[in-house]
Amino acid sequence: MEKKLTSRKENYSQWYNELVVRADLAENSSVRGCMVIKPYGYSIWEKIQSSLDKMFKDTGHVNAYFPLFIPKSFFNKEASHVEGFAKECAVVTHYRLKTDDDGQIEVDPAAKLEEELIVRPTSETIIWNTYKNWIKSYRDLPVLCNQWANVVRWEMRTRLFLRTTEFLWQEGHTAHATKEEAIEETIRMINVYAEFARDFLAIPVVIGTKSESERFAGAEETYCIEALMQDGKSLQAGTSHFLAQNFAKAFDVKFMTRDNKEEYVWATSWGVSTRLVGALIMAHSDDRGLILPPKLAPIQVVIIPIYNNKEQLSEISQRVNELCDKLKKMNISVKYDDRDSYRPGFKFADYELKGVPIRLAIGKRDYDNNTWELVRRDTMEKKIVNNDLIIKKIEKLLVEIQDNIYKKAEKFRNSNTTKVDTYDDFKEVLNKRQGFIEAHYDGTVETEMLIKNETKATIRCIPIEPISEEGKCIITGKPSKFRVLFAKAY
Amino acid sequence: MEKKLTSRKENYSQWYNELVVRADLAENSSVRGCMVIKPYGYSIWEKIQSSLDKMFKDTGHVNAYFPLFIPKSFFNKEASHVEGFAKECAVVTHYRLKTDDDGQIEVDPAAKLEEELIVRPTSETIIWNTYKNWIKSYRDLPVLCNQWANVVRWEMRTRLFLRTTEFLWQEGHTAHATKEEAIEETIRMINVYAEFARDFLAIPVVIGTKSESERFAGAEETYCIEALMQDGKSLQAGTSHFLAQNFAKAFDVKFMTRDNKEEYVWATSWGVSTRLVGALIMAHSDDRGLILPPKLAPIQVVIIPIYNNKEQLSEISQRVNELCDKLKKMNISVKYDDRDSYRPGFKFADYELKGVPIRLAIGKRDYDNNTWELVRRDTMEKKIVNNDLIIKKIEKLLVEIQDNIYKKAEKFRNSNTTKVDTYDDFKEVLNKRQGFIEAHYDGTVETEMLIKNETKATIRCIPIEPISEEGKCIITGKPSKFRVLFAKAY
Repeated sequence: MEKKLTSRKENYSQWYNELVVRADLAENSSVRGCMVIKPYGYSIWEKIQSSLDKMFKDTGHVNAYFPLFIPKSFFNKEASHVEGFAKECAVVTHYRLKTDDDGQIEVDPAAKLEEELIVRPTSETIIWNTYKNWIKSYRDLPVLCNQWANVVRWEMRTRLFLRTTEFLWQEGHTAHATKEEAIEETIRMINVYAEFARDFLAIPVVIGTKSESERFAGAEETYCIEALMQDGKSLQAGTSHFLAQNFAKAFDVKFMTRDNKEEYVWATSWGVSTRLVGALIMAHSDDRGLILPPKLAPIQVVIIPIYNNKEQLSEISQRVNELCDKLKKMNISVKYDDRDSYRPGFKFADYELKGVPIRLAIGKRDYDNNTWELVRRDTMEKKIVNNDLIIKKIEKLLVEIQDNIYKKAEKFRNSNTTKVDTYDDFKEVLNKRQGFIEAHYDGTVETEMLIKNETKATIRCIPIEPISEEGKCIITGKPSKFRVLFAKAY
Repeated sequence: MEKKLTSRKENYSQWYNELVVRADLAENSSVRGCMVIKPYGYSIWEKIQSSLDKMFKDTGHVNAYFPLFIPKSFFNKEASHVEGFAKECAVVTHYRLKTDDDGQIEVDPAAKLEEELIVRPTSETIIWNTYKNWIKSYRDLPVLCNQWANVVRWEMRTRLFLRTTEFLWQEGHTAHATKEEAIEETIRMINVYAEFARDFLAIPVVIGTKSESERFAGAEETYCIEALMQDGKSLQAGTSHFLAQNFAKAFDVKFMTRDNKEEYVWATSWGVSTRLVGALIMAHSDDRGLILPPKLAPIQVVIIPIYNNKEQLSEISQRVNELCDKLKKMNISVKYDDRDSYRPGFKFADYELKGVPIRLAIGKRDYDNNTWELVRRDTMEKKIVNNDLIIKKIEKLLVEIQDNIYKKAEKFRNSNTTKVDTYDDFKEVLNKRQGFIEAHYDGTVETEMLIKNETKATIRCIPIEPISEEGKCIITGKPSKFRVLFAKAY
């Protein structure tokens, strides 16, 4: 038996790192900052992808694919974009290797690119350069494209899933005839993300807009969803940007309106990434390992036989296989682990580590009694269930677990959201338990920066529908009309 | 109305290039050799992906994700791999941009990587470097991973889908305890590709092995599927490599056998790419545009209303919507194009260009007669179908079209496969109509190269189950035991 995980209390950060590796989700690769997503981790991502992809298509979007490389000169076109954002990039300068005199591989100095290519950190520039040719008239609008792709941002400090040099994501890039339509799209997509977080990730989120200093470079407004992790830190789980006409102007994308006038096109972009897998882990899991919401669990039910000899195993297997067949027909993913090389206790611990929502065990006595031993991962509650009722029980329990995980996360968030009215209280909360802090501030970058520099807490978002409340900035005492959400963040 | 496509007869190559762009499949980007896959083209690729992915999973494979970048030094480890293959690569040398004194973006010379990174042209090296840590014992085997990813090969002459600098593909990389098991896997996967080509792409293929000179660098045997295009050239549509222990030795991947001996692991790799979309176009389409097999068509049925006024349209739309609802429930993808801004004739031509398998039109008279006008794209045959029978007719026709397209391609291939026994006949066939040529050769690289240099035809494959036949090499007259397949190739 492997040793236990570090507990969350002992060292939350180490608990996370250990869990990601031990549960076979991902590992660091030989390339600094790049991860290998292992099959178990990747299958969670596949489920995230297919659920989100359906939601995008249901809201009228189509997928497309744009080049990995972006000519350097494109970054000169939208000044604020590159200033605020796109400097830490992988740069391709050559296109050939050669064998040197010692038989070693080296870069061929003769094969130098005239213009360097940047590995996309995000695709606004290359996509708007393409849209220029697609959009001539109001009839060509809206353009509602999404792309599933890898992107590269040269991060100095990386952590599996949360911040890696290369990561997988989707980026939606839409083009509209009017400002109103683009804003509507921006909000539609942040709501899609919030719905996905609630219904699939089982994570409650706060929807809001970013303050100026945290806004996406090139955007006029950035909407985000913020989720509270178990250590009291906030994690930005998705963003949706209203880009106004900035990229249309930079890449000269104009269209002819119905009234035959020439106008610049309005833009949005929105994305979520493999970071969501990190959010999933941090929001729900415990000291035994992962707790996965059934809707995203690669294995929803695992069955482990307990037997003394081959005859018993063969008897038990027959009943197990019947159940597996029925579950598969209902699209419930089930794994029968009858490997002889591992003992039941090892398997129990392993599937707890891997967060399988329901575990069934069946031994000789269960077989004779026509029962199953059932353990649900979220509460570790154990029950004996009659074979005649097992299907109904599993079906019901998968819904119940999904629901329970969400409620638990919601309860945690609510009890870790604190209203404070003085800077002293603000700092005390950060020292004690962190979490979300709702406070008044005067709306200036100076105040925001002062708080950030002194406490490391930042404005996570300005709630999208703030509750009107007269108050005073906790720093300057100037009047404020509503509270904003502060937290330390990943 | 746009002008007609160049015909295949007039200029096959131009026909292809025009068709790809006009049918909205893909276009060249601002980055040399990289394409933009447009939504309509990408949705074909999505269908290819999901069908293949299911076949991979049904044969026991799982997906994973490995880094985009490969350290340069990895290419030194398997000498034949880099010699034969991996030299034309994109090389990342820097990781930061900066703004120079004139406010222009430039590469920061201070941010130079110690070791250059290569954008993966294929992932054997990085994956086997990872497998080293995954595989310790026979219990860890087999490893059956697949990856859906983008790769980059710096091609000098590129063509949309057929040969692009960046392309999308899947690459399977498996690890086995025995040689036999690895060979079995190699053959299993080339058969999966052949089955996919037959059942989805509707393309008949020849399965065989590559001659030494065409073999994948690092492989001991390369299996391939070869498909004949309408211009008589062959297109390699998929490959599966038996890599023996070459990469295991290069990356020191050993395992403990059941008998406690240390042995190197056996490997395979196999892949298909967005090139399949090119194959699909070249194999079936005609001078009107695409002909898509129903199983991969993004739109299977398009419905076009013909009306003189709003009342007529509203009447017609009611019947159309009823049909659409029914078809959607049957998972048949249907599009109702009631756009007012285009005339029916324009729409007819556009959906012919886009290869939609079935087109329905309905006007006032059809409405009154309770009928539909139906045109199938593959034969352009027109029929009047009673509304009560339309669903059954569509269902049947989708199967029939899929079948007919395959049969047509098979017939074309058979009538363009020629047995020749002299080099003169060989050259004459190449001059007249090309196609596949079955000929005897002496099995030497010299003969192969002579033929290649003189005629541009190459050995496409050595059939996997050759028919024994005593013969003489068409060049040297030396004895040969079976014919191999020659052709000019893409």
